[in-house]
Amino acid sequence: MGESYGAWRMGDDEHAMPLVDQANLACGFHAGDPLIMQRSVALAVRHGVAIGAHPSYPDLQGFGRRHLSCSPEDVTALVLYQLGALGAFCRAAGTQLAYVKPHGALYNDLVRDDALLMAVLVACAAYRPGLPLMVLALADNGRERQLAEAAGVPLLFEAFADRAYLADGQLVPRRLAGAVHQDPERILAQALAIAGGEPFADIDGRPLRLQADSLCVHGDNAESLAVLRRLRARLDAL
Amino acid sequence: MGESYGAWRMGDDEHAMPLVDQANLACGFHAGDPLIMQRSVALAVRHGVAIGAHPSYPDLQGFGRRHLSCSPEDVTALVLYQLGALGAFCRAAGTQLAYVKPHGALYNDLVRDDALLMAVLVACAAYRPGLPLMVLALADNGRERQLAEAAGVPLLFEAFADRAYLADGQLVPRRLAGAVHQDPERILAQALAIAGGEPFADIDGRPLRLQADSLCVHGDNAESLAVLRRLRARLDAL
Amino acid sequence: MGESYGAWRMGDDEHAMPLVDQANLACGFHAGDPLIMQRSVALAVRHGVAIGAHPSYPDLQGFGRRHLSCSPEDVTALVLYQLGALGAFCRAAGTQLAYVKPHGALYNDLVRDDALLMAVLVACAAYRPGLPLMVLALADNGRERQLAEAAGVPLLFEAFADRAYLADGQLVPRRLAGAVHQDPERILAQALAIAGGEPFADIDGRPLRLQADSLCVHGDNAESLAVLRRLRARLDAL
Amino acid sequence: MGESYGAWRMGDDEHAMPLVDQANLACGFHAGDPLIMQRSVALAVRHGVAIGAHPSYPDLQGFGRRHLSCSPEDVTALVLYQLGALGAFCRAAGTQLAYVKPHGALYNDLVRDDALLMAVLVACAAYRPGLPLMVLALADNGRERQLAEAAGVPLLFEAFADRAYLADGQLVPRRLAGAVHQDPERILAQALAIAGGEPFADIDGRPLRLQADSLCVHGDNAESLAVLRRLRARLDAL
Repeated sequence: MGESYGAWRMGDDEHAMPLVDQANLACGFHAGDPLIMQRSVALAVRHGVAIGAHPSYPDLQGFGRRHLSCSPEDVTALVLYQLGALGAFCRAAGTQLAYVKPHGALYNDLVRDDALLMAVLVACAAYRPGLPLMVLALADNGRERQLAEAAGVPLLFEAFADRAYLADGQLVPRRLAGAVHQDPERILAQALAIAGGEPFADIDGRPLRLQADSLCVHGDNAESLAVLRRLRARLDAL
Repeated sequence: MGESYGAWRMGDDEHAMPLVDQANLACGFHAGDPLIMQRSVALAVRHGVAIGAHPSYPDLQGFGRRHLSCSPEDVTALVLYQLGALGAFCRAAGTQLAYVKPHGALYNDLVRDDALLMAVLVACAAYRPGLPLMVLALADNGRERQLAEAAGVPLLFEAFADRAYLADGQLVPRRLAGAVHQDPERILAQALAIAGGEPFADIDGRPLRLQADSLCVHGDNAESLAVLRRLRARLDAL
Repeated sequence: MGESYGAWRMGDDEHAMPLVDQANLACGFHAGDPLIMQRSVALAVRHGVAIGAHPSYPDLQGFGRRHLSCSPEDVTALVLYQLGALGAFCRAAGTQLAYVKPHGALYNDLVRDDALLMAVLVACAAYRPGLPLMVLALADNGRERQLAEAAGVPLLFEAFADRAYLADGQLVPRRLAGAVHQDPERILAQALAIAGGEPFADIDGRPLRLQADSLCVHGDNAESLAVLRRLRARLDAL
Repeated sequence: MGESYGAWRMGDDEHAMPLVDQANLACGFHAGDPLIMQRSVALAVRHGVAIGAHPSYPDLQGFGRRHLSCSPEDVTALVLYQLGALGAFCRAAGTQLAYVKPHGALYNDLVRDDALLMAVLVACAAYRPGLPLMVLALADNGRERQLAEAAGVPLLFEAFADRAYLADGQLVPRRLAGAVHQDPERILAQALAIAGGEPFADIDGRPLRLQADSLCVHGDNAESLAVLRRLRARLDAL
């Protein structure tokens, strides 16, 4: 959320915020200018929503979805910069960052590149001991656990309600057909399976089971809002 | 200091840092990228130098020297953003921001515009109660004191060793001839007068006395470094 | 038009383009990235719409609506840069820039500052002899005519269907109440008055007559699109 | 050249320009703001130097040296944008772009990725039929010739005086030791070998012969200026 920028609107945060427990807020590098960040923090605080920092590569035009070949030390510095910026708005609003979830290409790069994952872990630990990093829940997260332990950073695992999965728990890349579920029923079913620790179908129809602490629903259109409402009702009824 | 950016160098921070008590570090909006900020903080910590945040309008191309007509609420948000970003590097290095000194056009706008001054004061108070704001020492700072008291923000007053002054203590604008002293002797003499609370000559040759907590020497060329060395020696001998 | 940027959409160019004779296309400084510019040019060419360059101060976050204190030589260079960039897409599509209409704060500054107006005129003449500059139609445009003649640049005068006017033909600033007409009937009536060379009511209800070559309807919401459709029908029927 | 930006200086274009036949001018995406571009074009014209456009990925902070995963259609658009921008300054100065040489990571990506090379070729052809593209001279440029022929774009081949080479004519990546020659004698010798069509030693000491139309000397420090002076004298004496 908080992914508007200047005069441009994205998503419907006013209506989505009451429906979620956690909100990843953009930090100005792929979206979100300082005023939008300040208002998004205020909105989250008003609804008692935990705030996650959503740092990214510096790429407004590409919305942080393009890989940029940064050095690990650059990544540590740019993540720490963004954590500080969003954290200042949190502090001013009487709260603090609850966790860190990198955005877009940076998020995807973490499951492929040990040095980048460690660079982000170092930034989290430097910002505040104990600040958790949220990463993609895979069929096997052994590698992520090992590096995070070395860095002394708690991990949170995230699964996606509206994305198709490969057999190992990696996301089907957005450029491929079928990468994003459009059918509300399917999104809802996958969400409930993940929430209940039950298996759901990967891209090839084989069962995949993910252990996840957080369930992501992209909040950038009216349809996702409708799904979010139904999902919220179902989860509250569990 | 910390006013390099990416592949571009500015100033000679390595040699200037040991000579100063306080360093204003750029926060990425007019200069300073995250990695440079991180390194500048480390350099300041190594030399026991107090770190001031040097936030500015978002204007890399104009080095923050161009006025940008921002609303007060925009200014509060963009200052808070920059304080947070630099503050994160301070925190990671075991220190914290000692004060805030706006840069360039934003700094100059503060003595002209009550709403902008209050916007910056609000950002300082929101970031951390008691964090001081550094403003231009004038012949009469009554207005600044009044607003700062209302916001609960301590003020620090700054005078310039290498800038010519108008009778009321405002700086002669850079675009006018004689605005910046080039003669090292004159810079040194003005610096010592300010440090000693003695009057010095304004642009018209009339005596001007300023009460200042901080003395600014711009650190962006070899000449200023030489002046800084002599000044440091003279001040240490007082 | 062409005022989307990266992942952010603005306006409904697909539906507005068939309804206009001229389209001002953003050039990347306040909106419009290269790919959006290329597509906007293609869309205009497809509908036989004349393309005007819509250069602005470099300010994505402020959408070019904030004044930035640039020197005249900076303004000449930044306008020429943007004309060249948009012009390249025109050339590649077999057309060329029909005129130049500065955007936002830069547009507003032209009627207040001779040096800036001349800076933009110089850029137009340097880009292509005979390329017209579009400026605000005032009750008296003597000053604009004089400077443009000196620069050898033809002028086009523009009036606004949906903005309230002061007695001298200046626009009521956006920050004031009543600056932008919301009532479709009033927008339509003002548009038809301007098109027919008839007087219409200024902000104080007094008659104002403007000689205009171009009538601007902002194309950034569904309502304006509806007005545009009705206006197109009425003008075609004249 | 033209790789300064705002208040930051890079290189010594005033002294280097009289020594070269061709100058690659930055186009604002990795360096060079509009005013610097305008002045760099004027400087080149004053010395009768042919102007090449030096477009890059949009990455000021990384000086265009970081790979950014753009789509081919994005690359065509961003190159065309930059050609237009620099071309406008050329046109205003009574000259035109002589060739296109992509910068940094974009340049390096061209010898690895057919789709990106074709994207740049398309931009060149769209800007002006017959505008040549400069690419890296390899031991075998068959692939580049084939794609360029399909696009109808003439090629120029460039070799580097101060970079170490792999056996196939690819440059040793900058991050590896020995990638950039520091010894002026070696730079001079390699330059003269390339100019004379003679073999020189690759990174492993084996002879490499390159057919090159253009010889690049990086112009960003005092040392390279000295080499450039000696090289100019030697070439003029041939």
